[in-house]
Amino acid sequence: MNWCNPRHFKRSPTAFSGGPDQEFLLKLSGREALRPFSAEIEDLMAAARVVELAGGDTLFRQDELMTGLFVVIEGWIKVYRITPSGEEAVIQILAAGESFGPAVAMRDDECIAAAEAVGDARVICLSADFLIRRIRDAPQIGLAVLALALQQVRDLTLQVEQLKAQTGMQRVAEFISSLCPVDSGSCVVALPYDKKLIAARLGLKPESLSRIFARLKAIGVEVRADCVAINNVKRLKEFALDERSMTKSIRSSHAPIPMTLGR
Amino acid sequence: MNWCNPRHFKRSPTAFSGGPDQEFLLKLSGREALRPFSAEIEDLMAAARVVELAGGDTLFRQDELMTGLFVVIEGWIKVYRITPSGEEAVIQILAAGESFGPAVAMRDDECIAAAEAVGDARVICLSADFLIRRIRDAPQIGLAVLALALQQVRDLTLQVEQLKAQTGMQRVAEFISSLCPVDSGSCVVALPYDKKLIAARLGLKPESLSRIFARLKAIGVEVRADCVAINNVKRLKEFALDERSMTKSIRSSHAPIPMTLGR
Repeated sequence: MNWCNPRHFKRSPTAFSGGPDQEFLLKLSGREALRPFSAEIEDLMAAARVVELAGGDTLFRQDELMTGLFVVIEGWIKVYRITPSGEEAVIQILAAGESFGPAVAMRDDECIAAAEAVGDARVICLSADFLIRRIRDAPQIGLAVLALALQQVRDLTLQVEQLKAQTGMQRVAEFISSLCPVDSGSCVVALPYDKKLIAARLGLKPESLSRIFARLKAIGVEVRADCVAINNVKRLKEFALDERSMTKSIRSSHAPIPMTLGR
Repeated sequence: MNWCNPRHFKRSPTAFSGGPDQEFLLKLSGREALRPFSAEIEDLMAAARVVELAGGDTLFRQDELMTGLFVVIEGWIKVYRITPSGEEAVIQILAAGESFGPAVAMRDDECIAAAEAVGDARVICLSADFLIRRIRDAPQIGLAVLALALQQVRDLTLQVEQLKAQTGMQRVAEFISSLCPVDSGSCVVALPYDKKLIAARLGLKPESLSRIFARLKAIGVEVRADCVAINNVKRLKEFALDERSMTKSIRSSHAPIPMTLGR
């Protein structure tokens, strides 16, 4: 298995384009949840401003007035909260096509979280004023914005399930299997962002993530620098769904062969 | 301190009222997030059907088509997911005024979670057809439904923060302090539902919850049957926010007195 060079995965900054490109709009409005509103979404986004960010750039701050909704075109956006004791809790890492704010945008209130770019990123920004005006003019736009909000409710619901029902090891297995471009066989994938951030995204301490990476070797997953080699993607996916029964089957298939002394 | 009788807190079934009562509507539309849309929300809800449920009654099932949105008038509604390994993951326990579905309602798709009544409960149900018709007629209704969706995004975001950034003990302390009708001094409160469900809501195993209840005695919190006596509500709230610095101060104030042998 060849090990990839993590440098290949570093994004080079893209030029300011004035608006989102057609290819991205088609992909976004073709998503299952948004398909009924593809015309409205293309219409909304075409009028939007595209903002380019470098890693660490802030998109909005917690407790500031939220000025609109945004949709990620390219790169990763970290949504986080600063806890009362001053620590950072990563809520989501948004990828291309994912959005934040459609519900919040409507509210003349402080934003519940902060957001910043993880690396170079491009983002569509729609002001709350613009959205409210458009929804008042064309109620179908309101349904499209609700469909965007659905994605966030869905993602957060699945994350709560993951945090409550899965072990740390299952969460890591699910995260790695979500990176795989295939459903079976072997592959090598690059970790999309640094390990500290992956740990925070999965609700783990960095040292727990390192331990879990080491333990995943038992099911044919090897992490080296920023790359992961997966021997058997199907097995990894099964493990993410049901660690207990998998662990049993690993144990039984790897049962130590009884040794007879003196032979 | 007197210990309350948990039986006092059991709800007796209420009669079918035909529609939500005016008092509830005023309370709901007076909520900060919904205030700008109070007229629309009262208008929407007045046309709604009220459903009465007994404990264990199902409101909707996971993976069934979602037929609308609901708002809790009275009682508790458990929103949960069945994980791929067949276990139940409790996502939220909704209280009066909380809603589920505004985003989902718009989508001709399977519901992401299931919901059932924890005890006797009354719920406002709005069909997706009705909502879509009303939004098309009056776009302002779309903004009101978005404001309802905001509540769910906000609650889920805070829960993800809680699960990632707080210890189990802090989560329990926060849960108990949310039940207290006062910000300081002492009080006795009833646990709103059984301990197994509280554990599931907080992402804990039942045995961990029992251990945490026992450990909370150190900060003056005592759990007996379904009641909790809190000596110092302010201290409990501070502990929920910052366990580490509180634990340090408890340790130093409770430092064992050096004993001199032979005196």
